[in-house]
Amino acid sequence: MSFKFQINNDVTFNHNEKLLQKADQYKPQIYRTEVDAKKLVSIIEDTTKLEKVGVKVVENADKLSQQQMARNDSVILDFGQHCVGKFSIHIEHVGSPMDAPLSFKIKFAEMPNELVHNSNEYNGWLSKSWIQEETTHLDRLPVNFNLPRRYSFRYVQITIIDTSPKWHVKFSNAKAIVQSSADSTIVSPLNTNDSKLKAIYNVGITTLHDCMQDVFEDGPKRDRRLWLGDLRLQALTNYATFNNTSLVKRCLYLFGAMTSTDNRISANVFTDQEYVPDDTFMYDYSLFFISVLDDLERHEFDQTVLDDLYPIAKHQWQYMLPFINTEGRVIPDENYTVFVDWSNEFDKTTSAQAITIYALKQLIHLAKLVNDPSLTEYKTTLTLLENYAKTKLYDAKQKLFVSGGNKELNISSQVWMVLAHVMNDDTNQQIMINAIKKLFPVKGIATPYMYHHIIQALFEANLKDEAIKLMKNYWGKMIDLGADTYWEAFDPDNPNYSPYGSPIVNSYCHAWSCTPVYLLQKYLN
Amino acid sequence: MSFKFQINNDVTFNHNEKLLQKADQYKPQIYRTEVDAKKLVSIIEDTTKLEKVGVKVVENADKLSQQQMARNDSVILDFGQHCVGKFSIHIEHVGSPMDAPLSFKIKFAEMPNELVHNSNEYNGWLSKSWIQEETTHLDRLPVNFNLPRRYSFRYVQITIIDTSPKWHVKFSNAKAIVQSSADSTIVSPLNTNDSKLKAIYNVGITTLHDCMQDVFEDGPKRDRRLWLGDLRLQALTNYATFNNTSLVKRCLYLFGAMTSTDNRISANVFTDQEYVPDDTFMYDYSLFFISVLDDLERHEFDQTVLDDLYPIAKHQWQYMLPFINTEGRVIPDENYTVFVDWSNEFDKTTSAQAITIYALKQLIHLAKLVNDPSLTEYKTTLTLLENYAKTKLYDAKQKLFVSGGNKELNISSQVWMVLAHVMNDDTNQQIMINAIKKLFPVKGIATPYMYHHIIQALFEANLKDEAIKLMKNYWGKMIDLGADTYWEAFDPDNPNYSPYGSPIVNSYCHAWSCTPVYLLQKYLN
Repeated sequence: MSFKFQINNDVTFNHNEKLLQKADQYKPQIYRTEVDAKKLVSIIEDTTKLEKVGVKVVENADKLSQQQMARNDSVILDFGQHCVGKFSIHIEHVGSPMDAPLSFKIKFAEMPNELVHNSNEYNGWLSKSWIQEETTHLDRLPVNFNLPRRYSFRYVQITIIDTSPKWHVKFSNAKAIVQSSADSTIVSPLNTNDSKLKAIYNVGITTLHDCMQDVFEDGPKRDRRLWLGDLRLQALTNYATFNNTSLVKRCLYLFGAMTSTDNRISANVFTDQEYVPDDTFMYDYSLFFISVLDDLERHEFDQTVLDDLYPIAKHQWQYMLPFINTEGRVIPDENYTVFVDWSNEFDKTTSAQAITIYALKQLIHLAKLVNDPSLTEYKTTLTLLENYAKTKLYDAKQKLFVSGGNKELNISSQVWMVLAHVMNDDTNQQIMINAIKKLFPVKGIATPYMYHHIIQALFEANLKDEAIKLMKNYWGKMIDLGADTYWEAFDPDNPNYSPYGSPIVNSYCHAWSCTPVYLLQKYLN
Repeated sequence: MSFKFQINNDVTFNHNEKLLQKADQYKPQIYRTEVDAKKLVSIIEDTTKLEKVGVKVVENADKLSQQQMARNDSVILDFGQHCVGKFSIHIEHVGSPMDAPLSFKIKFAEMPNELVHNSNEYNGWLSKSWIQEETTHLDRLPVNFNLPRRYSFRYVQITIIDTSPKWHVKFSNAKAIVQSSADSTIVSPLNTNDSKLKAIYNVGITTLHDCMQDVFEDGPKRDRRLWLGDLRLQALTNYATFNNTSLVKRCLYLFGAMTSTDNRISANVFTDQEYVPDDTFMYDYSLFFISVLDDLERHEFDQTVLDDLYPIAKHQWQYMLPFINTEGRVIPDENYTVFVDWSNEFDKTTSAQAITIYALKQLIHLAKLVNDPSLTEYKTTLTLLENYAKTKLYDAKQKLFVSGGNKELNISSQVWMVLAHVMNDDTNQQIMINAIKKLFPVKGIATPYMYHHIIQALFEANLKDEAIKLMKNYWGKMIDLGADTYWEAFDPDNPNYSPYGSPIVNSYCHAWSCTPVYLLQKYLN
């Protein structure tokens, strides 16, 4: 998740030390493993199409030390897998004494197409500082060179800026020290003979694994941050795999400890240096705090977490109550963005109505667990919201939900209404069948986040074959294009698509894309 | 000094531990001082001419912290003096939480014209790695940022690659920790009312000061190395100022400890990481080992140093004996370059003859000090060499020395023959008067190293006014062009000249240029 910018300098925040201490009690162990570079590769390039940028193996990586490199020489290391961690390499000089420093660039890439773009030419709105490229001078060789920062990569391109005419440079022993708070040893394989699904499942596990760090990060290359929308999907996938519930609790406490003074949950928090909530708020993401808490309690009941965080979950509900009118209609406020998807090309009001119902149902479940006297009131509101949806938003003739003043038909409205189970199962199935007829193939959606919800709605509507088909067409196509981990953004009709103007800042390992693992475990196993 | 490349991979070297230990006993104290940035400046640019690239003061440097900087913003700090040392600056962020790393460039420049050249466009033969430019990512702010490398600069340009649209960056407290092994407190001022000469003298002192580090370096920006030709001039200037004789002894021991196994002194040694002699040898530089030792013993007699190093000095003489034929003619060998000057546009055989005589006279002085029985033989050879010069190289009609088969008239031949005092004082004066008539203004010489010898020859020929005039025209013009320290290369007819294709790798503080200090003290005080 990376959301174009809100700046709210005037927001003030709570800083609940007691809850932050609990977040720290759940600080995870980080597992570290050494991974050696596997191959030396060269780029196969057709810059007009993403799918045409690939690599060709040149040598085994142990041949690296046989290359004597000088000005403008370049080599690409392939680690054979997506790595999140630190990089080290041995560097020595060959020839006459070192009569000048060594100067070189190291560029890290998750996908080969990042390497064909010149960093200097990127001018998109996202910070250039995300480009994983370091320029270094070394006055003394030999050295075991360790870069201090963490990178997310499979490929490492080393380009010599200069040695001197009197000596060359030689690299060897390129290593990644990969890291994750996920314990890989406890994951069970998917029980299927379908090799495509197996591959989809495995790449999803790697994606989640590499995003599980000190918190659930959205993307280890960029933004490396805890977002609530990503957390919800990561937590569910995590329960189906690594089952690190402590990490989910840590993240919930971090959000809960640092609400704004008007009790809203930030859409994301910074945790790298100190704990700081972002000044970005989104209607649906705030509600999903309820959802993540309820998912946790259903997966593994924890009375303390519930007691600590239920009041904060309830605040999210209370804060958005004014957005529900007496008819039971959700009227989103432009100062409290409803995200749903990156695309702003479709009307989101019906989706907002559905997400509100979806979250309220989870709040009701939590309220029962804590015997909240507000339960009756919640139920009344739920009825109001559902009635509005059924009578004003559902078009019984088309058997589809409409959205906004222009009664727009869009995929998101159907999907979220099905996920919220506003209608009965038969109607839900009919809605999704109609959605497939009228709204497929999906257009204008480029996030696995939205695709996840579409596929889950298909599963929930008992349209398993359609769900699997779409999963194979979407996640499967990423694999066909060389994905080792799933991407933040992917438009199957335009594989070259970047929301940022250049793949060089794309995140090719992004948490919200790992969910096929969850979906396959839940609906197939 | 920086000399275009010899590569002699097959040379083997001695490594005399006893002498290296003595070199270490003379390891100098390094004096460190904090210097604050003084001004914020902007470039005034007319790229067609070096002298047109200057700076304009914008603000006092304490206003730096009031600038909130973002993508592509840039600021230039002026430290108001040439600095050799490390750089530190405080960096903090302003605005929303830091949702991306900070990425920025820091470029260090001795002269403003370095800042108008794009580092990426430099493609000269000298290593690009000398360009003093660092690119850094910082994941966390605030930070007291300390660059680990040493730089040579007056100007520091900071360019923001990116922050993010949500926050800006703010710098403050820019500092240089300057360093030198020269003790500035003991230098006496020049006794003159001539303000131009005073300025020339003072800039020379700064030049030497900034080159005096763990050894006498040739240039603190580039190559940062101990060269014998530079050492000879630095030592003489040092005796007239900081009088750090220990540092001279250290350098002599370093050269003496690591001769090639055929006993030649390397033209330079590396001392930064470990002690390694370069595989570059030059006829005149090797002979100057004799010269530096004799200059030291004349300045401050040291029996131990003499006993340790006289045998090595003598080896230099013995090694080049085969280059003298029975007539007393020096026949330089192409494998043992005679440097004299960078320019290869003039014939150097007569200069080589003169330098051989010059060095032999110093060897004879040393031989007397140690009662070397070879003394008689040396004297015989001297007579032979001088006779050849007087009878075969001196053109009595023109009252000038000729050089090579084409009897070329060049300035270097006259200068070195005068410095070697081959002729009597009257003839020497006449030679220099004729040289002024026929060979002035000097053309095709771009090194202060050669200009030093020309001016010293004028002084030795008792042509003091001419010497001062040339000094003012040459070193004075560097000051007019903004020199805080003297340059490695300077052609008064072409101030834009760089021997490397771009001023970005020029050394604007170079040891061999500091000698007006020595000359003024010796011939004027």
